[in-house]
Amino acid sequence: MTDLPERTTRYFEDYQPGLTVDCGSFSISEAEIIAFAKDYDPQPFHIDPVGSAEGPYGGLIASGWQTTSLTMRLLVEHFLDEQTSLGAAGVDEIRWPRPVRPGDTLRVHAVVLDVRRSRSKPDRGIVRSEIKVTSADGETVMTLKAINFVRARHLEG
Amino acid sequence: MTDLPERTTRYFEDYQPGLTVDCGSFSISEAEIIAFAKDYDPQPFHIDPVGSAEGPYGGLIASGWQTTSLTMRLLVEHFLDEQTSLGAAGVDEIRWPRPVRPGDTLRVHAVVLDVRRSRSKPDRGIVRSEIKVTSADGETVMTLKAINFVRARHLEG
Repeated sequence: MTDLPERTTRYFEDYQPGLTVDCGSFSISEAEIIAFAKDYDPQPFHIDPVGSAEGPYGGLIASGWQTTSLTMRLLVEHFLDEQTSLGAAGVDEIRWPRPVRPGDTLRVHAVVLDVRRSRSKPDRGIVRSEIKVTSADGETVMTLKAINFVRARHLEG
Repeated sequence: MTDLPERTTRYFEDYQPGLTVDCGSFSISEAEIIAFAKDYDPQPFHIDPVGSAEGPYGGLIASGWQTTSLTMRLLVEHFLDEQTSLGAAGVDEIRWPRPVRPGDTLRVHAVVLDVRRSRSKPDRGIVRSEIKVTSADGETVMTLKAINFVRARHLEG
């Protein structure tokens, strides 16, 4: 037993177009930017805090793949549901309109765009959502369109 | 001095439509799948080797974001160029048609789709590429369309 409000399981039928979920925020440090990029995206403007000052971004910026990965963590915790999430078919239109820099705190929102029942597997549906990530001063640093499979509560919509 | 052939710097002008680059391969272990997913995508089918057997994929599968991140590493090493890569505007159409499982070895190819000179910054161009990741038995496990900024050798195309 806990005092925390327990979230109700969110099924396919609960992802209605327009549903908007505030998924909270995360921060990113210089050390985290460098560590991630050394493993996955070792370009100078992601791993070299000194040399990057003369580079195309005038300093160190986070790999876009780090922003997507850290955003995913918040989507798993707040938007998807461990009882009903069946994975993703893919992602459309990732955009990184502004760089993410050391010390940034980023907020994640998810908005359901459209939904449809699976034709081949009637126990589930496909949920398309727009994910928006904004900096503390309100600038959009990433948008993407997620395509998720979600288990339905009932076989019939 | 080294015996290894040194690659010539690849500028915007060198990314011609149809250029195909074999970026090599990477393998992925169960421990790596779980470690990545615990940080970024802690869904049961990514982190629970026992429970996932009863889950939607009949076993553990890698987070799609791990596949993109490991693929990026090979793109940085073989397709992009540290002298000319100026970052990415975004990515279109990531698709994960088949799951990636522990022990898989995946091969990465990049094909240039189209290129255009930047209108606002004539020292660079935009290169759109299709990235294809295949398993050892030739199945496609991921495709994506990358959109990269690349420094030009000359101001005029």
